[in-house]
Amino acid sequence: MALKGKVLIAQGGGPTAVINQTLAGIVLESRKYGEMTRTYGAIHGVEGIVNENFLDLTQETSYNLEQVAMTPSSALWSTRIKPDSKYCHDIFQVLQAHDIRYFFYIGGNDSADTVRIVAEEAQKVNYALRTVHVPKTIDNDLVLNDHTPGYGSAARFVVQTFMGINLDVRAIKGVYIGVVMGRNAGFLTAASAIAQKYPDDGPHLIYLPELEFHLEKFLVDVKRIYDRYGMCIIAVSEGIRDASGMPIVTTLRKNLEIDGHGNVSLSGTGALGDSLAQQVKERLGISRVRSDTFGYLQRSFVGSVSDIDQREAREIGERAVQLAYWNNVNGSLTIHRTGNYSVDYRLVGVEEIAAKTKVMPDEFINKDGNHVTEAFLLYIRPLLGSGLQIPSHLMAPRVPKLLIGK
Amino acid sequence: MALKGKVLIAQGGGPTAVINQTLAGIVLESRKYGEMTRTYGAIHGVEGIVNENFLDLTQETSYNLEQVAMTPSSALWSTRIKPDSKYCHDIFQVLQAHDIRYFFYIGGNDSADTVRIVAEEAQKVNYALRTVHVPKTIDNDLVLNDHTPGYGSAARFVVQTFMGINLDVRAIKGVYIGVVMGRNAGFLTAASAIAQKYPDDGPHLIYLPELEFHLEKFLVDVKRIYDRYGMCIIAVSEGIRDASGMPIVTTLRKNLEIDGHGNVSLSGTGALGDSLAQQVKERLGISRVRSDTFGYLQRSFVGSVSDIDQREAREIGERAVQLAYWNNVNGSLTIHRTGNYSVDYRLVGVEEIAAKTKVMPDEFINKDGNHVTEAFLLYIRPLLGSGLQIPSHLMAPRVPKLLIGK
Repeated sequence: MALKGKVLIAQGGGPTAVINQTLAGIVLESRKYGEMTRTYGAIHGVEGIVNENFLDLTQETSYNLEQVAMTPSSALWSTRIKPDSKYCHDIFQVLQAHDIRYFFYIGGNDSADTVRIVAEEAQKVNYALRTVHVPKTIDNDLVLNDHTPGYGSAARFVVQTFMGINLDVRAIKGVYIGVVMGRNAGFLTAASAIAQKYPDDGPHLIYLPELEFHLEKFLVDVKRIYDRYGMCIIAVSEGIRDASGMPIVTTLRKNLEIDGHGNVSLSGTGALGDSLAQQVKERLGISRVRSDTFGYLQRSFVGSVSDIDQREAREIGERAVQLAYWNNVNGSLTIHRTGNYSVDYRLVGVEEIAAKTKVMPDEFINKDGNHVTEAFLLYIRPLLGSGLQIPSHLMAPRVPKLLIGK
Repeated sequence: MALKGKVLIAQGGGPTAVINQTLAGIVLESRKYGEMTRTYGAIHGVEGIVNENFLDLTQETSYNLEQVAMTPSSALWSTRIKPDSKYCHDIFQVLQAHDIRYFFYIGGNDSADTVRIVAEEAQKVNYALRTVHVPKTIDNDLVLNDHTPGYGSAARFVVQTFMGINLDVRAIKGVYIGVVMGRNAGFLTAASAIAQKYPDDGPHLIYLPELEFHLEKFLVDVKRIYDRYGMCIIAVSEGIRDASGMPIVTTLRKNLEIDGHGNVSLSGTGALGDSLAQQVKERLGISRVRSDTFGYLQRSFVGSVSDIDQREAREIGERAVQLAYWNNVNGSLTIHRTGNYSVDYRLVGVEEIAAKTKVMPDEFINKDGNHVTEAFLLYIRPLLGSGLQIPSHLMAPRVPKLLIGK
């Protein structure tokens, strides 16, 4: 029989374009069941829980909830706190005090780990609690999942960006370096390959954090492409690293900021792109070298979303509630590809997801280590959704010259 | 009576999202008139003319032309060459050799100047030639024009970006600096103000190249906002300069690249944003400070376009051909606002536009010099087009605390 009590939803980690679809899915579904007496939202993730900062989403209008669902970024805001056991104990105390019996945490692998520990706390004192981790991350780095909600939309933004860059660089030529988010997994950077429509379109080179980055090989690659096309468009993961595992940005620049997790800040700065551009200028003697770091635009730009991603993010929220209510189970929701293209959602043990990272499999990376394979293109295409505008070139014939060569 | 001969179209300067609408407008309209015997397109602007690199656009399919019209960036590619008198003479020689009688140059104020000199060359030898400058620039800096084709779409991209940034920064807090294109005119940066929906939305501060930028005042502004909201979102023009007219990026950084016009490269590098972020971190002791430089995305991203901008860019191309054909006149097309919101297109002497720069008028800038006025919001709103998605926040009530404060 279903537990009776309140529902609590929290969002963790970086925002995505569709994370609020999942929120709406959970809220709307949980409001259908009498046993789910209230639906609360924690403000700023786990911080909001320990501080008892809750919104009563039972009193949110459905209309506004649908508007919020279409709004990117975390409507409940987020946190970068990664709770330890003590913190998880505090979380549990609050859940118990508010008679919360269903805890849905929308997040990545760190959030899954929090769900795991909170579930253990409840078990210790025999407090009946349904705990469900619902996936989201633009990095697409959760194990067991074919892909994660949020990835398709961020990938679509990256594709739209590189489509434009192809057109822009072609007009004036030169070298262009676009730096894409992704500390450990290169899925988002790899998405740029979809921008190649015409044979000489970029990105001509794609560098991922899965492989060692060698500056010398990079320069050889760039020169080869530039000599051939008079231009070279490059997609680089912010997380590319050298043979010792050191982020390349730290080997090229000093005085970088360290974030709360002890990692070098890779986003919110143009350091990596600027440093690589400088190498290309100085070492290859190419004068027009530009770099853009796509930064926060990739995960929160308003107006670029994959409809497939939206739908899946909504459904996985609904399914989370349905499984917790009807099946009385804990775990982590996962997306599995069942056809071309169809998916289903399954529940796995949260410990199978927690604190683990999926990276690009070998079959998605070309053997030169500077581009993707056709297997990857097949993998990603449906995730980008429908209605993606495709650029077109003029096809008119050349006019014979009258003065030159006479 | 209309001249009989060929039509030549070229595109100059930086690309926009709708410049190919203007191209399509000229091509489709010119193909209606028997006296316009062929319609050529010059590849890489004036470079393509002197090298006789022409496409025969009479043989472009209408369907593909419509696809190209929807594609951002210059389909005929571009050039950064600013022709001197000798170069304009060479251009004229080629026009004459190909019996070109209509020359349409889509570009900014530099392109207008080229049109002016080419017209003079033709007049010198009594060669009958219709020369028309058709405006485009994301900078919106052409005099006499209410606004320019390309501006509305780039502005829409900037708005969509800051809407997302508002949501993203709100979730985790901190200071965010977004660097927007605009060397002399701040219109594009100012557009960010439209992203403010809720009272505490950013951008809280907007800095334009029209006013002197004082680092000390900037830091005071940032601190005031940050103390109030726990966050501060800032839009900065890449062209902000100090009292002596020196770009701020050069006062904060050394070893910057000089472009073909002798100007410091402001785009394609994160230098300005990173330098300002460093100042905020070091001087104000705020730990989470991020900056993004929107770079080339603002002018070529595929999938963000204003329908108003599209329509006007198309119409102004058509009108250019109609005026040249039916009225037998030379000049520069301009856009005038005639109602709220309606426009008409007029022809002015190209010398009235050439090599002149419009900047933000005083009535569009607030008296503190760190934001825009309501007059500017009224001015820009229609240019952004329809269907702009507006973010929504949750409106649910707070839940009373049970543990804290008891």
